[in-house]
Amino acid sequence: MKIEMICTGEEVLSGQIVDTNAAWFGDVLMQHGIEMQRRITVGDRLQDLIDVFVERSHHADIILVNGGLGPTSDDMSAEAMAKAKGEPLAENKAWREHMEGWYEKNNRPMHASNLKQAMLPQSAVMVHNPVGTACGFRVELNGAWLFFTPGVPREFKTMVYEQFLPFVHELFPQAQATKLIKWLTFGAGESALAHELDALCVPADITVGYRTSLPHVEIKLLARGEQAIAALPEFTQQVKQAIGHYVVSQRFSTLAQEVHALLTERDTTTTLSLAESCTGGMVASRLIDFPGSSQYLAQGIVAYNNTAKMDLLGVKPTTLQQYGAVSLQCVSEMAEGARSRLDTDFGLAISGIAGPDGGTEDKPVGTVALALVSRTQTWSQVVKAPLRGRTQIRQVSCAVALDMLRRALLGENPIADYGFIERLN
Amino acid sequence: MKIEMICTGEEVLSGQIVDTNAAWFGDVLMQHGIEMQRRITVGDRLQDLIDVFVERSHHADIILVNGGLGPTSDDMSAEAMAKAKGEPLAENKAWREHMEGWYEKNNRPMHASNLKQAMLPQSAVMVHNPVGTACGFRVELNGAWLFFTPGVPREFKTMVYEQFLPFVHELFPQAQATKLIKWLTFGAGESALAHELDALCVPADITVGYRTSLPHVEIKLLARGEQAIAALPEFTQQVKQAIGHYVVSQRFSTLAQEVHALLTERDTTTTLSLAESCTGGMVASRLIDFPGSSQYLAQGIVAYNNTAKMDLLGVKPTTLQQYGAVSLQCVSEMAEGARSRLDTDFGLAISGIAGPDGGTEDKPVGTVALALVSRTQTWSQVVKAPLRGRTQIRQVSCAVALDMLRRALLGENPIADYGFIERLN
Repeated sequence: MKIEMICTGEEVLSGQIVDTNAAWFGDVLMQHGIEMQRRITVGDRLQDLIDVFVERSHHADIILVNGGLGPTSDDMSAEAMAKAKGEPLAENKAWREHMEGWYEKNNRPMHASNLKQAMLPQSAVMVHNPVGTACGFRVELNGAWLFFTPGVPREFKTMVYEQFLPFVHELFPQAQATKLIKWLTFGAGESALAHELDALCVPADITVGYRTSLPHVEIKLLARGEQAIAALPEFTQQVKQAIGHYVVSQRFSTLAQEVHALLTERDTTTTLSLAESCTGGMVASRLIDFPGSSQYLAQGIVAYNNTAKMDLLGVKPTTLQQYGAVSLQCVSEMAEGARSRLDTDFGLAISGIAGPDGGTEDKPVGTVALALVSRTQTWSQVVKAPLRGRTQIRQVSCAVALDMLRRALLGENPIADYGFIERLN
Repeated sequence: MKIEMICTGEEVLSGQIVDTNAAWFGDVLMQHGIEMQRRITVGDRLQDLIDVFVERSHHADIILVNGGLGPTSDDMSAEAMAKAKGEPLAENKAWREHMEGWYEKNNRPMHASNLKQAMLPQSAVMVHNPVGTACGFRVELNGAWLFFTPGVPREFKTMVYEQFLPFVHELFPQAQATKLIKWLTFGAGESALAHELDALCVPADITVGYRTSLPHVEIKLLARGEQAIAALPEFTQQVKQAIGHYVVSQRFSTLAQEVHALLTERDTTTTLSLAESCTGGMVASRLIDFPGSSQYLAQGIVAYNNTAKMDLLGVKPTTLQQYGAVSLQCVSEMAEGARSRLDTDFGLAISGIAGPDGGTEDKPVGTVALALVSRTQTWSQVVKAPLRGRTQIRQVSCAVALDMLRRALLGENPIADYGFIERLN
């Protein structure tokens, strides 16, 4: 079975809108064990549409077409399909009546332009749209079925679930089962991870995929078919042995969400104070993005200059003079200053040189000091983030800080070795 | 000139990642007056890649290929291109040396798998990648140039600007002059803005575009050709009259950057303290993203619960009892508490109900109180953010807060009317 997708619309092609329908559709297909072969995006030019419909009908079995079913002049999917098939458009009476009923029910006048939405290629089979005025339809051309859906996300998604997937399963009942495992890693780059995993023997029909979203890499193990699915647990164990120490979440796509879950799943409430310098509220903001974070996050202090570090966090002037703001001593005092202030279980502090200025020979841009304190212990380290610009240095700092807390919550040593982050002391 | 784009990668095709590179590229082309004909997305199957390279080479003049240049086994763009062209891969010595230097400079070991990144189709012209280890290249096939770029957004974007666009202009020097004006707006939705602008008479060859990135809408006026460029100033004035009160930046793509610029461009240093509840460090983090923010940002206090509001910001217990944490009284005390603490020029406070829980009949989810205090004045308001989820409510809160400060810095009234945000008091 060869499935393709054709996305229409100048605004999608020219990047005015990001094509989230396409990403969503690909994901749904994969979850249903259906592989998409190709996706094509074209603008609103009639001849381009006709060409692409004819051309792809020679290659695919089913082609989902998205967009171009609205009432305006740049909506021309039905017209292009009729021309591709060499037949006229004809009014679909059932859909016209449906539209008239819809407008009446919604107490809105139906514009003459809407009548266009009931004009389908003569040989089209109507596909019901229960949530809008754009009529879906399908047409057979050169042995392929072109299946037309509206661009409005809610209408599109409803029709994929209620009409398109049942149609595919009816046409190809033998579709394959798939299973996907996703892990979030931190501390090793894509090539370092690949280097480890390339040494493993990958069972047939399992694919190993990587997705880099700096400073993280997501690893994906996709098994296609029953045999591959059966082989997955054993292979997963091997992957875990090879690169498990870089895995920071086996269930979420962000480290912040993993830490949030670890903090909220505990039997006893664990509270946290943050003292941020170079990350400047980034750690706090990422945690507060999840509802329920008020349970544990007592406070966040963004102390960006030395005065604030002394006044708000009680860092000693002599510490700043003797060791500087980016030092084990300073971050330890920052973390304990924040922690003791509201008597929370943990205090977490970050102070670093995010650049582009402010670096010295001793402490170049990218140098970041971090400390985690509990009621009884202090863990601190100075690391060197790779030089990929200010935002990246702040993101790496944020990730190391959250990972220190994650490890502490799991009873592991918060000070870990990361592949691409050097530990200075 | 016919330009197409081929996006590779199972993760793009299957929707594991939304293809933001494609949208970005379409947008950049448009800004340079270049029209894209078609975009094709294919997975990581060698034959599919070979087929699409050969097929599109018969239709396009220039084809930008994105992705598949990494070191792992699912990176096969170079191999597929070599096969499409019917030639072997050959090591590019210059790139191998460049990579070795890169790893040495970054103090990281180079894996054997990276060597693959120096293997290019024999007839390829190397295209320099100044910010990564994936080597770009271009190959001529059937009269079309296929131009290969890495999928990592930073590397891709750098190469499009530094290599691809100059290459296109060299090949097709007659490309039309264009001029683009972009304005960032806040407070009105796309359809409301379009309603205002549809009433204007748009000169020939000027297009009005909208790009929604909630809670902002960017307005773009693109003039193609000398005549349209000459008509642009007059039209721009009309647009400003129609929707100018929603424009928050005429030079930057984020409101935070506009506020950062207004704060750093002033003759006298203006200092700021932040007191954030529901935004939880988001305002601080957005400002600290810009180097030089330490000049003005003295501190940020994330006081998420009532204890923190009292202990850290000096909010009176009676205020919380009588009016609650989301009230004009509470945010005014928060802002002044933060401001007076380090004696800064401004104090800015946000406290709201981001949901999904915590709403009441009086103060439903989405209710947000904001206050800005200077050394002599206090401005405060309670607004109702549209209900589009926790993150969106936090983003709207952040935008209103920054806009209050922006208006104050420009000498305008910080309390403004926004179309989609209701002011409660």
